[in-house]
Amino acid sequence: MIAAYQSRCQARVDAALETLFDAPRPELQRLYEAMRYSVTNGGKRVRPLLVYAACEALGGDLDRADGAACAVELIHAYSLVHDDLPAMDDDDLRRGKPTTHKAFDEACAILAGDGLQTLAFEVLADRRLNPQNSDARLAMVGTLARAAGPAGMVGGQAIDLGSVGLRLDQKALEVMHRHKTGALIEASVRLGALASGNADDSSMKSLQAYAQAIGLAFQVQDDILDVESDTVTLGKTQGKDQASDKPTYPALLGLDDAKAYALELRDMALHTLRPFSEAAEPLRDLARYIVERRS
Amino acid sequence: MIAAYQSRCQARVDAALETLFDAPRPELQRLYEAMRYSVTNGGKRVRPLLVYAACEALGGDLDRADGAACAVELIHAYSLVHDDLPAMDDDDLRRGKPTTHKAFDEACAILAGDGLQTLAFEVLADRRLNPQNSDARLAMVGTLARAAGPAGMVGGQAIDLGSVGLRLDQKALEVMHRHKTGALIEASVRLGALASGNADDSSMKSLQAYAQAIGLAFQVQDDILDVESDTVTLGKTQGKDQASDKPTYPALLGLDDAKAYALELRDMALHTLRPFSEAAEPLRDLARYIVERRS
Repeated sequence: MIAAYQSRCQARVDAALETLFDAPRPELQRLYEAMRYSVTNGGKRVRPLLVYAACEALGGDLDRADGAACAVELIHAYSLVHDDLPAMDDDDLRRGKPTTHKAFDEACAILAGDGLQTLAFEVLADRRLNPQNSDARLAMVGTLARAAGPAGMVGGQAIDLGSVGLRLDQKALEVMHRHKTGALIEASVRLGALASGNADDSSMKSLQAYAQAIGLAFQVQDDILDVESDTVTLGKTQGKDQASDKPTYPALLGLDDAKAYALELRDMALHTLRPFSEAAEPLRDLARYIVERRS
Repeated sequence: MIAAYQSRCQARVDAALETLFDAPRPELQRLYEAMRYSVTNGGKRVRPLLVYAACEALGGDLDRADGAACAVELIHAYSLVHDDLPAMDDDDLRRGKPTTHKAFDEACAILAGDGLQTLAFEVLADRRLNPQNSDARLAMVGTLARAAGPAGMVGGQAIDLGSVGLRLDQKALEVMHRHKTGALIEASVRLGALASGNADDSSMKSLQAYAQAIGLAFQVQDDILDVESDTVTLGKTQGKDQASDKPTYPALLGLDDAKAYALELRDMALHTLRPFSEAAEPLRDLARYIVERRS
């Protein structure tokens, strides 16, 4: 069910992304190639899926959500490129492929990440790529900037780097994840709602609570998979978080309680969607999928 | 003349910037400190000055230009932080102070740069910080994104890094500078014009031609100063561009012809401002200052 929906969303956003990486002049070829490479990584496109599914849940037309779907994926892709750098997580592989600084070089990866971030805002501001009225486009820019910036995703990465080797309690761990991954997941749902043209305060609140619950569930499940999966299934080095002494839910709660917590978060997410019609079924499927996935 | 105007602009934009770096929670203290440090570097605030002076040249109120002035400086500051990284230009000093990755660490500098970029777009989208109508704010976001992104400033840095050791001709050198520094200088003038609320096509065209001329003049003069100044005056290692075999105007044209070229560009800039009233005097003063400065 969700697999088919996910494939459709992936095809949509991949087609829209593909148009963004033609170098405007030959001198810029390598930079644009590095950006394309960073975005074309076989990712599951969870954030674009959230944009589309939130838009659909409010009865919106998916054609109007392509720009927002691209923008959140561009931000996500840039964050991965920079997180993988030697000075940060120092990863050589991402989904089984060389990371951008390995496939190109470090300077190119820094610049590709920088450029992907800018491109996200360029896409949102562009009426052709993001066909909403001015107020909606502006609300999207503000929402994405707050979510991606120092009080959001970038801040979460800073907290994460500052926490290695520390014993975080559950509250501190959730603060970190709410910034590092939760903020962009929330923004994805908000952007989808804005793209629908039908967002009101009440549905925005429900969608935000939904996003908070699945964002955390996603993280808890990621930690569980890091313990349980082997390197091949996961496409990254298994047990890496444990090895580097990063705080994880299984370390904090024990593996069984971490699993129970993931299921509890899924149920909370489903609960917040009760006011919505069948059009919210993809959002519900996603909540179920997040805690059932094996990679 | 320009010194007094520059001090006023510097004070204005510094006061506006200062409000942006209070960490919203203690865990984010270090990141916000690194961002504040990166922006508080004794810079001349040339790009904010251009925002204010362009706004003033079109009869606009400077209060309306503070947000745009902050945004261009945030982009400039982020680009310096990333350009100074070991994988890029590998600079230890910037204006006589340790660069951000030296004062903090490399991961923190990458994230601070990332966060400064996001903040620029957050400021432009925020009605409180950038009190224009939606269309003007959106035009600013689009303008700054195009100028700062892979087809602009980031692209210029990529071309620059790819040119080390190559013999560029004058045309190729100007393509590099038009991207690396020219695009943001043009955007500064456009943002100032948009902030005035009085921009029309004809004045936009004149201001763009002005910005192109002074952008190039600025670069030619920088290259001249790199040859002529000593390390103390310049606040960076003298002769560094020469030593690393980076293409420069004095290397290409000879020192005397490079100086003549800078003066010619100044005259072109002044020529494009003929349709403007006395309100454009700060822009004219800046064009003169750029080729007369010694640091």
